[in-house]
Amino acid sequence: MEIKNFLHPGSIAVIGASRDPKKIGNQLLDNIISGGYEGKIYPINLKEEEILGIKAYKNVSEIGENVSLAVIVIPSSLVPGEVENCAKNNIKNFVIITAGFSEVGKEGEELEHKLESVAKKYGLNILGPNCLGFINSSIRLNATFAETDLKEGSIAVFSQSGAIGSAVLDWFLGREFGISIFASLGNKTILDECDFLEYLINDEKSSCAVLYLEEINNGKRFMDVVSRLTAKKPVVLLKSGKTSEGKRAAMSHTGSLAGEYETILAGARRANAIVVDTIEELFLFMKFFKRNLSVDDSRIALVSNAGGPLVITTDYASQKGLKFHDFDDALKGELTEILPEVRTINNPLDILGDADADRYRRAIDKIISNRSFQSLLILLTPQTSTQIMETVNIILEAGKKYPDKLITTCFIGGRSLEEAKAMLDRSASVINFDFPNQAVKCLSRYVRYLNNRNNPPYTYFRDDTPVYKGVQEDYLVGLSLLQKF
Amino acid sequence: MEIKNFLHPGSIAVIGASRDPKKIGNQLLDNIISGGYEGKIYPINLKEEEILGIKAYKNVSEIGENVSLAVIVIPSSLVPGEVENCAKNNIKNFVIITAGFSEVGKEGEELEHKLESVAKKYGLNILGPNCLGFINSSIRLNATFAETDLKEGSIAVFSQSGAIGSAVLDWFLGREFGISIFASLGNKTILDECDFLEYLINDEKSSCAVLYLEEINNGKRFMDVVSRLTAKKPVVLLKSGKTSEGKRAAMSHTGSLAGEYETILAGARRANAIVVDTIEELFLFMKFFKRNLSVDDSRIALVSNAGGPLVITTDYASQKGLKFHDFDDALKGELTEILPEVRTINNPLDILGDADADRYRRAIDKIISNRSFQSLLILLTPQTSTQIMETVNIILEAGKKYPDKLITTCFIGGRSLEEAKAMLDRSASVINFDFPNQAVKCLSRYVRYLNNRNNPPYTYFRDDTPVYKGVQEDYLVGLSLLQKF
Repeated sequence: MEIKNFLHPGSIAVIGASRDPKKIGNQLLDNIISGGYEGKIYPINLKEEEILGIKAYKNVSEIGENVSLAVIVIPSSLVPGEVENCAKNNIKNFVIITAGFSEVGKEGEELEHKLESVAKKYGLNILGPNCLGFINSSIRLNATFAETDLKEGSIAVFSQSGAIGSAVLDWFLGREFGISIFASLGNKTILDECDFLEYLINDEKSSCAVLYLEEINNGKRFMDVVSRLTAKKPVVLLKSGKTSEGKRAAMSHTGSLAGEYETILAGARRANAIVVDTIEELFLFMKFFKRNLSVDDSRIALVSNAGGPLVITTDYASQKGLKFHDFDDALKGELTEILPEVRTINNPLDILGDADADRYRRAIDKIISNRSFQSLLILLTPQTSTQIMETVNIILEAGKKYPDKLITTCFIGGRSLEEAKAMLDRSASVINFDFPNQAVKCLSRYVRYLNNRNNPPYTYFRDDTPVYKGVQEDYLVGLSLLQKF
Repeated sequence: MEIKNFLHPGSIAVIGASRDPKKIGNQLLDNIISGGYEGKIYPINLKEEEILGIKAYKNVSEIGENVSLAVIVIPSSLVPGEVENCAKNNIKNFVIITAGFSEVGKEGEELEHKLESVAKKYGLNILGPNCLGFINSSIRLNATFAETDLKEGSIAVFSQSGAIGSAVLDWFLGREFGISIFASLGNKTILDECDFLEYLINDEKSSCAVLYLEEINNGKRFMDVVSRLTAKKPVVLLKSGKTSEGKRAAMSHTGSLAGEYETILAGARRANAIVVDTIEELFLFMKFFKRNLSVDDSRIALVSNAGGPLVITTDYASQKGLKFHDFDDALKGELTEILPEVRTINNPLDILGDADADRYRRAIDKIISNRSFQSLLILLTPQTSTQIMETVNIILEAGKKYPDKLITTCFIGGRSLEEAKAMLDRSASVINFDFPNQAVKCLSRYVRYLNNRNNPPYTYFRDDTPVYKGVQEDYLVGLSLLQKF
């Protein structure tokens, strides 16, 4: 289903708009207005003449102009009828915020079937029901009832869980980077993740997609769309086992669905999605994508004033398949000259516990300006000679001076680093993690994604988590997934 | 080696004490004084009459009283001679801060051999050289040159890396819980981790041990001491592969040491140590031990206002071997009565996205007061009806009211949760994590530790990380480790 028009409505009716600030119908209208949306807005309410300074209508039929999108927040029992009424008034696109459909049991299911029939009869796009709404920051449209900054960014986020959607929007508050498109998928009666992912293939505003899914309705289409998208930009997927487990419990007498969860994940990997296991990793990856990444291979250097953390990071990197390639002789020579304090010049580079800001500066400058290295991971622990804020400034300057390079930082410790970490976090040019394992995890998975993208058909990389243990052969799994749905 | 006297010196000489605030000999003396140490302090300096308000001596022989401990910060070449001089003056215990020994090459190695000979000749306890020093907060002694709060606590920390030692001390700054004993092990010429771990077996001030090690000198003693300690309190170990890799490179012609790293870790697990893979996990576990844990089994309940995170947490828990046991019928009945909004009453308990603080209160009160559950994990994401700070207050009250129960929290999101998370972090009664996988990881490993402790000989649990893959049989590995050293 083509959803470009859905995401770029020329005008919006809010059906169930309210003057009461406690009501979602008020918060939603307020968000659309205050976000800065420039199209026409029509509050629909049976009793009001005006809401939030905008003329209100009793019914969409009164508007007398074309409406591109209806956002619906009326009680569930009224929804199918109202959608049909809108459809008769030539509205094709809908966001149904209202809950109380298939998620609440049998009665709700019937209501959702009715809604589906109306949608199919008129060929409608419907997001939801039972969702937070969506955001398209390129047209400054916040059609959700969640508080958010609407800072334009390049991260596209789709969540089947409202709670995770809320958490993600909250996580973006006050950050220097933001969302391109956000959609809370809700019950996915009509529109699902595939519709949005397909749109992203040619959306230049979005540099990646971050997904939380509980179920995938159409495995074949999912693998097809994700494969096409990952050929251009990374897709990060967190999938819960909810539906699979629920189904398993319900259908335990057949046993036919055992392993479906693993199969879906294997299929997603086959399509070169970056599959993560925890909400923490989902958030980490968003941090990692705050820049349009320019690294296109694994040429990564590591600089540290801390021997222990450097060794642990190297261990961890090697476990995750990430290598710190040797400096070439020319670079070694240059570094030896400018770092006479440091005995062993190699990658990873230990600039020693007594490194001051100037020693950091010399090492960083030389490595980041070298065309052999696209990416630099910088570790720091607070020791007696450490100049914390001065070192931060040096790193931020390097980030600005070399915008085509990727600088990642981990300052390991506690209170004395708080200000430094906050500054690094706020920076647009540097990506800061609390711990090196987080940086290594993101970098290694990203490099793996790139390797796969450049060498299709994808090599199957097994993950370490037990859930993937049983899956040995990616190709067969990919095929079986395709045949299954 | 008996180190009770070492850790509880009646008087201290600081050899190399300085008036210059930039020098370690000044910072160290200042730390000993300002920490509140009540024994006598003797600064030793050839030129000064007085340092930081205390009478200084030219030499320990001038003091004319018994000195229990000498802390040495003079140039490395002078150290062995000075230690011998001290030994002749009947000093048995030393902290050698000075670097420039075996870590810098051949010359330093010779110096360290000389030091070792002196130590053996006189039967001395030496911590270091090349270390930060130690802390014994029960006698308010901060014999390190690192800035730290010296808040009395029950976490014992031993680090072979100065950088990680600094990071850990920094991490404790400003927290409501602290260290019992801290030692930076440095080059371990005489005292090593085993000496301290042995002391901990009967140290009632310490409830756990947290270790960072780069090499283990004596595998047999390590397993013996750790086994005896873990029978009483948990030991968390992070070990880098540094020495093993270095040795491997140096001795690649024999190949005999391949796999030693894995073997040491397998041996540590055999001794029921909690082996972690990253600095992040080491820090997480310190958070987890801020309370003297009272849970003694796996009776854990989970309450959440967020369906997605609840399902992911359940998935993750089940992967990690942690179960949320069903509520019994009585508890189910009570909860059904007080939570009429919630359709499905079970553990884990989804109190739904519109849960306000009062609904959290009712669920938490009932579960935490039930004697079937010793531990409660509470999830929250910020949604429209969520009352963030009110919910924090309810959780903190429950924590105070039931000090014998373990309450763990994860508030998932961003800016709107900052204040709430800071309050939970500061609380003495509640343990807050950023993400549920962190809480699950700590809880599951702790429960596994308890199960092993209660059912020796320990069942061997394989870890998910590749490094342990080759190791199949704990008993043989334990034996081979014992025979190896």
